[in-house]
Amino acid sequence: MIPVAEARARILDRLRPTEAEIVHLAEAWGRVAALPLCARVTQPPQDLSAMDGYALRAADGAEGARLRVAGSAPAGHPWTGTLQPGEALRLFTGSPIPDGADTVLLQEDAAEADGIVTVREAVAAGRHVRRTGQDFAAGDVLVPAGRRLTARDVGLAAAGNLPWVTVHRRPRVAILATGDEIALPGEPIPPGGIVSSNAHALAAFLRAIGAEPMVLPIAPDDTDTIAAAASVSSDLLVTSGGASVGEHDLVQHALAQRGLAVDFWKIAMRPGKPLMFGHMGATPVLGLPGNPVSALVCAVLFLLPAVARLAGRSDSGVPHESARLGAPLPANDRRADHLRASLAPGPDGVPVATAFSRQDSALLRLLAAADALILRPPGAPPAAAGETVEIIRLAALGI
Amino acid sequence: MIPVAEARARILDRLRPTEAEIVHLAEAWGRVAALPLCARVTQPPQDLSAMDGYALRAADGAEGARLRVAGSAPAGHPWTGTLQPGEALRLFTGSPIPDGADTVLLQEDAAEADGIVTVREAVAAGRHVRRTGQDFAAGDVLVPAGRRLTARDVGLAAAGNLPWVTVHRRPRVAILATGDEIALPGEPIPPGGIVSSNAHALAAFLRAIGAEPMVLPIAPDDTDTIAAAASVSSDLLVTSGGASVGEHDLVQHALAQRGLAVDFWKIAMRPGKPLMFGHMGATPVLGLPGNPVSALVCAVLFLLPAVARLAGRSDSGVPHESARLGAPLPANDRRADHLRASLAPGPDGVPVATAFSRQDSALLRLLAAADALILRPPGAPPAAAGETVEIIRLAALGI
Repeated sequence: MIPVAEARARILDRLRPTEAEIVHLAEAWGRVAALPLCARVTQPPQDLSAMDGYALRAADGAEGARLRVAGSAPAGHPWTGTLQPGEALRLFTGSPIPDGADTVLLQEDAAEADGIVTVREAVAAGRHVRRTGQDFAAGDVLVPAGRRLTARDVGLAAAGNLPWVTVHRRPRVAILATGDEIALPGEPIPPGGIVSSNAHALAAFLRAIGAEPMVLPIAPDDTDTIAAAASVSSDLLVTSGGASVGEHDLVQHALAQRGLAVDFWKIAMRPGKPLMFGHMGATPVLGLPGNPVSALVCAVLFLLPAVARLAGRSDSGVPHESARLGAPLPANDRRADHLRASLAPGPDGVPVATAFSRQDSALLRLLAAADALILRPPGAPPAAAGETVEIIRLAALGI
Repeated sequence: MIPVAEARARILDRLRPTEAEIVHLAEAWGRVAALPLCARVTQPPQDLSAMDGYALRAADGAEGARLRVAGSAPAGHPWTGTLQPGEALRLFTGSPIPDGADTVLLQEDAAEADGIVTVREAVAAGRHVRRTGQDFAAGDVLVPAGRRLTARDVGLAAAGNLPWVTVHRRPRVAILATGDEIALPGEPIPPGGIVSSNAHALAAFLRAIGAEPMVLPIAPDDTDTIAAAASVSSDLLVTSGGASVGEHDLVQHALAQRGLAVDFWKIAMRPGKPLMFGHMGATPVLGLPGNPVSALVCAVLFLLPAVARLAGRSDSGVPHESARLGAPLPANDRRADHLRASLAPGPDGVPVATAFSRQDSALLRLLAAADALILRPPGAPPAAAGETVEIIRLAALGI
């Protein structure tokens, strides 16, 4: 058995980011920048007023001073003259500061009548002025390559005048679920069979993490059919089922017909011991367990970072956090465990993670109800309530 | 000035969830269940083997016992006979347990030769059997109404044999950015103008939280044009800009032509003081500030819960967490503050939030770089490094 981290490292070592493509900004959310997003403009492009009021020379702004109003400059309608001593210009939030002025008198500190504004509160030089380039200058990196774009990044790219951005193509991931005993939801269920959940759970999982899923038809336990179904073009082929040692586990045998060069591992983990990884030509193949709980936990641990790598992300995509145990845990054996747990806010603000009492890997309902997985390292000693443990929060990822 | 919580409550009080629609399971991820998702099948549908091995009567399973192999039942190919005393049935993970058997002998604890299997490790009744309905029974609620579906929920719905699910229609949210001074990215920038970021940032924000954005053309500062642009059919109209008191802030005046009944509030918050909320006929209208940082912070505080309500979610959509301060903060004034901050893992596992030294609401780049907002209540006393504060983590929401 090999450790989880080693298996993950060996998978990531074989994956390369997809090529870059251009998308328009309205489609950029959730995509991964393939090149740094660099500003095409300086923001603010010139000194702007931060408030509604009057531009003037600070030297003219003593309390009680009376200044001639030289004009008005609403945002979008700059005043192009040069302000003279003894003059003020009416302006608004976002209006350019005219030449000759160096500060802004707030509207509420001014009284205007008959073309004359009276200063009711002395001004200081440079107040309420947004300086040229104080947010960013043309050429500045606004978003680094490798970042999955948030809504704020999209706004920043817009402010930097980028109608197009260069992102990695979404990884296309084919999903092949196999088994004579499984049926798709709503289709006739064979005798002794069950409804397949892995294909659609994995498709939703892939969508949540920014990949483009392709759900292949369910393949019966027949090598030729499996081999034919697997010969699709994708950045990654994920199989579910058939990765254990039973004699009816045909996926590995079937894909060998297509030239699969395989690493097959027993991972020192629970749930989800057997994992297959290899290459069929240029296509990497990840074989997940058939058990739905095991398949999804393995997807969190292996598929998520694999897709993050394929998508060109600079982070692993798997955010680990800390929590305190809500109930004690027994010592762990030599397999890393991933306990389905609820989370609640703790008295000191640290989330409290309480493992469900039933951890049977056949209980998909409990996995769906879990807020987080508690990560128990191999050989972990017994842990008391209140001890700090590492968790992966699931719902925040949409998974 | 009214408190943030009061403004939010008044907004939510006026919003109702969208109607329900049917979507197929492959499109259900991220949607909000409008009805409980109830299982149509029992899982497991009958007692199944949890392992590869042999089904037998526990009474026959003493160490050294020799049993006749009555047949073989791969998953999906049930054996329909009744197991007799002295017999064993070869089976695999997921195979139905035949009548007459009550336990499973593990493959690794068995030796088979010439149609006879020898028990090498005594069995216990009921071991390695997945009982009928241990995951769920037909009719059980798998996912409650009001939950935004995760990938695990999709898998659970599939396992429950639900090809279709009833969800709330995605809220359609129209976005109207106004201003003579703004241009869309890549378009000619007017003299003294800037590139508009709010429309696209808000569209990405809405997509991240499961709404369907509709970006209206930028409207100049002209009441008739604004009124015409705003007359679109949507579940919510969001305007940006024009909600402050300046004489060139025309949105409110313009929408009055369309019958806008308005609540206009100064919110006791920073950044983003002025907020408009009202109704134009049946359409609720939320007026955000024009400043991009203020607009996005207000979107987190007001638009996110508004969309959660429109989408039928039973939660508010705004997850508050705790963190420790990485640096001291001064006393706060009477306005709730939302400090842009970085997060780092702390020594005890609690995230450490450190407010950026610059909090100017003109700095969109710093908002995009922030991991979280630190929530500072009105009148909060000075806070030392290490004190616990409430935060909203931004990137986890995709916003």
